[in-house]
Amino acid sequence: MKIALAQINYHIGNFENNIKKITNAITYAKQQKADLVVFAELAISGYPPRDFLEFDDFIEKCKSAIDTIAKKCIGIAAIIGSPTKNPEEKGKNLHNSAYFLANGRIVSKHHKSLLPNYDIFDEYRYFEPNRNFEIINYQKHKIAVTICEDLWNIGDDPLYTINPMDELVKHQPDIIINIAASPFDYDQDEKRKNILIQNVKKYKLPLLYVNHVGAQTELLFDGGSMVINDKGEIIYQLDYFKEDLKIYDLKKIKNSKIPISNCFKKKSSDKIALIHDALIMGIKNYFEKLGFKKAILGLSGGIDSAVTLVLAAKALGNKNVKAVLLPSGFSSAHSIKDAEKLVKNLDSPYDIISIEEAYKSFDNTLKPFFNNLPFGLTEENIQARIRGVILMALSNKFGYILLNTSNKSEAAVGYGTLYGDMSGGLSVLGDVYKTEVFELARYINKNNEIIPNNTIIKPPSAELRPGQKDSDSLPEYDILDKILYQYIELRKGPHELIRSGFEESIVRKILKLVNTNEYKRHQTPPILRVSTKAFGMGRRMPIVAKYLS
Amino acid sequence: MKIALAQINYHIGNFENNIKKITNAITYAKQQKADLVVFAELAISGYPPRDFLEFDDFIEKCKSAIDTIAKKCIGIAAIIGSPTKNPEEKGKNLHNSAYFLANGRIVSKHHKSLLPNYDIFDEYRYFEPNRNFEIINYQKHKIAVTICEDLWNIGDDPLYTINPMDELVKHQPDIIINIAASPFDYDQDEKRKNILIQNVKKYKLPLLYVNHVGAQTELLFDGGSMVINDKGEIIYQLDYFKEDLKIYDLKKIKNSKIPISNCFKKKSSDKIALIHDALIMGIKNYFEKLGFKKAILGLSGGIDSAVTLVLAAKALGNKNVKAVLLPSGFSSAHSIKDAEKLVKNLDSPYDIISIEEAYKSFDNTLKPFFNNLPFGLTEENIQARIRGVILMALSNKFGYILLNTSNKSEAAVGYGTLYGDMSGGLSVLGDVYKTEVFELARYINKNNEIIPNNTIIKPPSAELRPGQKDSDSLPEYDILDKILYQYIELRKGPHELIRSGFEESIVRKILKLVNTNEYKRHQTPPILRVSTKAFGMGRRMPIVAKYLS
Repeated sequence: MKIALAQINYHIGNFENNIKKITNAITYAKQQKADLVVFAELAISGYPPRDFLEFDDFIEKCKSAIDTIAKKCIGIAAIIGSPTKNPEEKGKNLHNSAYFLANGRIVSKHHKSLLPNYDIFDEYRYFEPNRNFEIINYQKHKIAVTICEDLWNIGDDPLYTINPMDELVKHQPDIIINIAASPFDYDQDEKRKNILIQNVKKYKLPLLYVNHVGAQTELLFDGGSMVINDKGEIIYQLDYFKEDLKIYDLKKIKNSKIPISNCFKKKSSDKIALIHDALIMGIKNYFEKLGFKKAILGLSGGIDSAVTLVLAAKALGNKNVKAVLLPSGFSSAHSIKDAEKLVKNLDSPYDIISIEEAYKSFDNTLKPFFNNLPFGLTEENIQARIRGVILMALSNKFGYILLNTSNKSEAAVGYGTLYGDMSGGLSVLGDVYKTEVFELARYINKNNEIIPNNTIIKPPSAELRPGQKDSDSLPEYDILDKILYQYIELRKGPHELIRSGFEESIVRKILKLVNTNEYKRHQTPPILRVSTKAFGMGRRMPIVAKYLS
Repeated sequence: MKIALAQINYHIGNFENNIKKITNAITYAKQQKADLVVFAELAISGYPPRDFLEFDDFIEKCKSAIDTIAKKCIGIAAIIGSPTKNPEEKGKNLHNSAYFLANGRIVSKHHKSLLPNYDIFDEYRYFEPNRNFEIINYQKHKIAVTICEDLWNIGDDPLYTINPMDELVKHQPDIIINIAASPFDYDQDEKRKNILIQNVKKYKLPLLYVNHVGAQTELLFDGGSMVINDKGEIIYQLDYFKEDLKIYDLKKIKNSKIPISNCFKKKSSDKIALIHDALIMGIKNYFEKLGFKKAILGLSGGIDSAVTLVLAAKALGNKNVKAVLLPSGFSSAHSIKDAEKLVKNLDSPYDIISIEEAYKSFDNTLKPFFNNLPFGLTEENIQARIRGVILMALSNKFGYILLNTSNKSEAAVGYGTLYGDMSGGLSVLGDVYKTEVFELARYINKNNEIIPNNTIIKPPSAELRPGQKDSDSLPEYDILDKILYQYIELRKGPHELIRSGFEESIVRKILKLVNTNEYKRHQTPPILRVSTKAFGMGRRMPIVAKYLS
């Protein structure tokens, strides 16, 4: 039996697009003499469809799409993910299911048993877990179909009380298929492989794994679909960050002695390279799926906007990213110089628009109401907000999407101006700590100097008052980022942080900043997620609270 | 046995505050000869603690608070909600529990079985459901303790496969206690009473119900704790929107023939009165819990900012709300007049700050980059954003929180400017449709004209270009709001809406506007939730999607 693995970039709710991609893959796989083609979890709707699942109309459109696709399954079978209605009276209205389609019709449905409901996942919000375990009999093979999380309860700290494969093995399958929607983070590929290999070793069955690829707003799917033989060796793998379709012969998988092909393009150890590729895909897909072509951003001469510009130029084309230099009286000479050097290196369009006149007009307008209070944070924020107004005006006038250039360290401690530099349609670096932004810059420059070296080596500054440096109000980034990582990604408390050697006053100050700035993060653009704990849908915090603050 | 019901306004994560309120209630109840005092669900942490639950430090603080409180339970017992660690190896790390405290120590723990995970609820994100059903034996009484949702699976469309009370009745309890965190919406009190009465009728047991009161950012808890006798009659009730503590004799509850006291302050039919009171509590608590006293808002002369100002003045005191009139060349004479009349009626402070100079400076600054393109949406947005800059500047300079004045109809269709009129720390009317804002205005004016009548009767306009009216770009609000309600609250699809008589082109246009403006709502302030489906944490939509759009 020849099995095609179809790794596709779906678009949430875009049934026309998804049906077309799926039927094209079926047609191609059939031409290539495949017997079965496997698509990802919730392929029909895209992942995650979120609360669209609560609309009957949406669920009916999923069913209608499946009916259309089933008709194409003649001379070839398909396994494909879709929400289905739960026919039982009790429990949630839906299942997260895999359809088995053959002979032009729906043959069977297989529901997901373990419903992830942590971090960015909300599956128990919509779906009733499966309690009936049936396998697929097809061409003398017995296929155990599992859906993503169904294979993930195998570690030392089981999150669920059952293991679906323990039930499915009772039917003596000879192969496991797992259809997934497993989003990227820079550690995920390694974790994923470990988990899948553990399953193969436990159940002694070969495993075919099909993942999503492409970005759905903040969630980045890296693909990396794969085939693991029954010894737990990855013998084939599909591409990362790209659509791909490959066909494998089950006989060869079963008889494989050594890895036949090795297309491990990336390793988890190449963290910065992975983040680089993921962010580019994230930008590209965000624009494509919204039907936009051009981006705009404020280029300060600093490292965050420089890295954002380079990534956007790679994603959208250098001519499709407009940089705007927005100097004020506090901008240093090197800022303009460094920014101009970068746009010239990239050959991207740019404008220089001074914010001086607008700043003076606000100064005049507000002076009678400010009671002679001294220059301070307010005036810094006014400058940042004038830049926001200008960038949004150009965005509105010419149909650009404004890219936000804030990094994760700033977002964490609230070092940014709401409606100013925190504006934008998409945050490119909001899940990348400042120290990682430096690494990204060096990675971008690995062959030649694209980002001016001066941008990388000069001390970070917001340049909103004379001689300002980030380190005036924040600890050095190498300390700050370590504490933030321990608190945000690892959820360590103050006592653990202090015990591990960080200075108590700094720990208390930073944790307080993180918690009291939740209100700012509530209003930031969606952030491309590259870490195990990004700000946004995967980190849900109260705003009005008083904890470590 | 005398039982005290303690209806308290907790503060999430503020253990010091919560412990103090709880121990004060215990001391008072003991003085009043109560045998048992009952607190709400997750009282110790406040509700919802959200991802703070993922921090070991937070869970340890909950346990430490319980230990402190247990020591006070001498000569009196207490039932109190708290997260607890799940001792089992399998399953999620926590339970949502009720502690039974007596004789200065923890006597038993009772976990929640049904974990709501819809709308604003995320409980399965953190908690393992209970599977052991034990009752409390205390002073010759057998108490079945349930936690909120545990009693809610009794309707025609059961969301869960079990009913905890079916298990608990096997131990022959003689009373049901339900500790809850049941947030307000204008229909909730009626639904809540129906559900609780259904339980009483099914199990033939009296029921004591303790709810939260007070606002936690967007979530408004209305209190309304109550006692229902075993005939299903509500015989006592605690206050709405206020802290309250009442003590009831179990003997009297059991022998009650008719309702003894009736403190139903509000009926669900008084929808606008309920919304009015809920919003005032929401504003008040938001400021108190963040440690702020003063609000600022832009007062346009239109109805949304007028209603917002009145509600804020009632919540914070008329002198603590600063109105800023921000006229442009497009502002009509009546706008300033109506706005001034309102601030004078309220005797609130106000300033008039023209945006003309700032607008001209942006016009000058941007002219060279706008290629002589005509005046349009961009210029309208610039005006709105200048107002945002000025309001935020005053907010920064003087420590005001900016109140957002957008209504739900605008938020739904994206009729507002990001970083302009969509700015603010809190959205007061973001869950109130425009037609309901009119009703609120008339309710506010029921005894005398606080909001100038002209503000209520004139056609709504953003006044961002000459002669502009909302109805130029939107259907009339009575049509718009009906369609929005059907789509947002009832989740009807386009076919159902068209079948029910709305014009197809209008339905398609509105649904498309709602879906394509998700990106704007993603960046709006938290919205005080008064309906069954508010924008914000209870409505989770993809941004990059193509469905009905």
